[in-house]
Amino acid sequence: MRTPSVRPFLTTRGLVPENQESPVHYIIPETTEPRFHFRRNHFAYPSLSPLSYWLQVEGHVENPLWFSLQDLLALPAVTVPALLECAGNKRGLFEPVVYGEQWEKGAISQGYWTGVPLKTLLEKAVVKEGAAEVVTIGMDRGKRPGTEGSVSFARSLPLEKATHEDTIIAYAYNDRSIPFKMGYPLRLIVPGWYAMASVKWLRQIRVSEESFTGPYQTEDYVCYPDKDSDEGAFPVTEIKLDSSILQPMQRAILPSGSHTIHGIAWSSTGVIARIYVSTDGGTSWSEAELDPEQVGYHWTRWSMEWLDVQPGNYTILSKAVDASGAAQPETAFWNRNGYGYNAVDRVEVKVEE
Amino acid sequence: MRTPSVRPFLTTRGLVPENQESPVHYIIPETTEPRFHFRRNHFAYPSLSPLSYWLQVEGHVENPLWFSLQDLLALPAVTVPALLECAGNKRGLFEPVVYGEQWEKGAISQGYWTGVPLKTLLEKAVVKEGAAEVVTIGMDRGKRPGTEGSVSFARSLPLEKATHEDTIIAYAYNDRSIPFKMGYPLRLIVPGWYAMASVKWLRQIRVSEESFTGPYQTEDYVCYPDKDSDEGAFPVTEIKLDSSILQPMQRAILPSGSHTIHGIAWSSTGVIARIYVSTDGGTSWSEAELDPEQVGYHWTRWSMEWLDVQPGNYTILSKAVDASGAAQPETAFWNRNGYGYNAVDRVEVKVEE
Repeated sequence: MRTPSVRPFLTTRGLVPENQESPVHYIIPETTEPRFHFRRNHFAYPSLSPLSYWLQVEGHVENPLWFSLQDLLALPAVTVPALLECAGNKRGLFEPVVYGEQWEKGAISQGYWTGVPLKTLLEKAVVKEGAAEVVTIGMDRGKRPGTEGSVSFARSLPLEKATHEDTIIAYAYNDRSIPFKMGYPLRLIVPGWYAMASVKWLRQIRVSEESFTGPYQTEDYVCYPDKDSDEGAFPVTEIKLDSSILQPMQRAILPSGSHTIHGIAWSSTGVIARIYVSTDGGTSWSEAELDPEQVGYHWTRWSMEWLDVQPGNYTILSKAVDASGAAQPETAFWNRNGYGYNAVDRVEVKVEE
Repeated sequence: MRTPSVRPFLTTRGLVPENQESPVHYIIPETTEPRFHFRRNHFAYPSLSPLSYWLQVEGHVENPLWFSLQDLLALPAVTVPALLECAGNKRGLFEPVVYGEQWEKGAISQGYWTGVPLKTLLEKAVVKEGAAEVVTIGMDRGKRPGTEGSVSFARSLPLEKATHEDTIIAYAYNDRSIPFKMGYPLRLIVPGWYAMASVKWLRQIRVSEESFTGPYQTEDYVCYPDKDSDEGAFPVTEIKLDSSILQPMQRAILPSGSHTIHGIAWSSTGVIARIYVSTDGGTSWSEAELDPEQVGYHWTRWSMEWLDVQPGNYTILSKAVDASGAAQPETAFWNRNGYGYNAVDRVEVKVEE
């Protein structure tokens, strides 16, 4: 007798460069296995030669330094449970529609990242008076429409966020070396910010007195609220409070009877106070059961028993509330490039006899 | 130096039972590799014991027979290039929305199927006068909402289609044993009909004087044009004329300049006469280049060079015309369960500087 394995896969949104979505609807463990971790790239994968690997710390510092992997492994390590969410997660849900990879609910993954606080390296390099930002540069590089020549993927953080104790130079994910596609050998991890900040294949850290103006800082990952002009533009930074209904699936057909509705909720701090669920399109709401153990910046699972459901069409909604009492909005803040969608989640199902 | 492989995956629509979509946008070869073949199941996979495998032919025949795999391999074989398309392919595009697996463009795959014409077996069994249908029964079985007890996946064909020379009991796909998930060891292949007719894990063939009334014949795979009543219902049979734009992808952002638009077109006979493509939402149309070699029931590739494209938003449409001169409709024929979507295909893209 054969027992065929049935497993989910990444959902392919593009291959050149590789952009694939995590099958979040089918993942039960707290942490995302690397094979199911979403992949979001701006370029082809870089070619690495790890034997000659050095991480450079330079710029507005007293002591420019080069760290080998051995140097980093010798420093005191911390482990941070962190969720990474692409700023374009759920882009496909915006109305009016926006262009770019049409991510659904799976541009989000999480696990335990281990490494050295960026602050430790900056202290060793001794940041000079007047420093404002820390620029982090990856080894991925290539052509970008609208930019002359070729460009590295690079991002900056304000000094305050760069020196936050949970902002780390990670060398391990779930207790193993970071898998290549996830940023081996070193990845900046910026918990609480959208994942464009968590630069993969890190090669250089530059302390700066000025605002960084790379295209992934000042053109992409910027919210443009106006469809034609750049008026009112502001940068994408912290992860917004959000929730997803993972089961049932959008437009599923269910038998009548009892069902469990379940999903996840997350925020920039990881703290979720309450989840409300509606099964009648928002006329009435019930508080769902939240997993009491909230781990670091990870999402929190929630569930609600939906009992004795009769045939008909239903609209299920989920709405998260954070520690400050703020709730997810009814409608997402529209912006031209489709970042930060976080409206109350919505799934329509049909219940048959 | 590492060279990471970048490959597409099936898109998961459900795991219990397994329903996964082919990554058609990224597949170039004429035939679909088994790992990229779409999977559509009504039940968990059956447990097989191939050593004791017999295919039974019975019912309204003079000589009920049991065929072993060896018996079938000893009979004259034919190879048929056949496309399989789920009747629910593109269901997610219907408006108003319909419920069930939200297939996009990938519930379609193709390859070379080898086996024995069903007609050969029916001739050996000697069909009696008065026979009307041939019922084919798979080994997959389970509970179905709305049906008492458990039920096998079973379908019937009118005698005329069952005895068509291209309707075969296949034992090979692309010159190898049929992969388990695709119906090993024997699968009925009914070219030109939607794939519910191509019963997997075939175990029994029953000739009948009466119309078969199994739930997958008379409840599912029936077009209900009315949203509330069963008025005007008719069965799903032949594949409809259709085309898909495979690249660019829906809501892609493209650089200005020249691009190739490419896709596939198919029909119940495999013959495509012409493809028209519009890049201005249907105001003007150009004839695309069709692959001159049209193979059996396989889809035909087409492409069009889109030259010197300036920044702006564009709606690309594709419309296939078959040998009779019939064209794809502007709007798909709406039906409650969402079968046979075949409207002119539509992709919206944004071209930037």
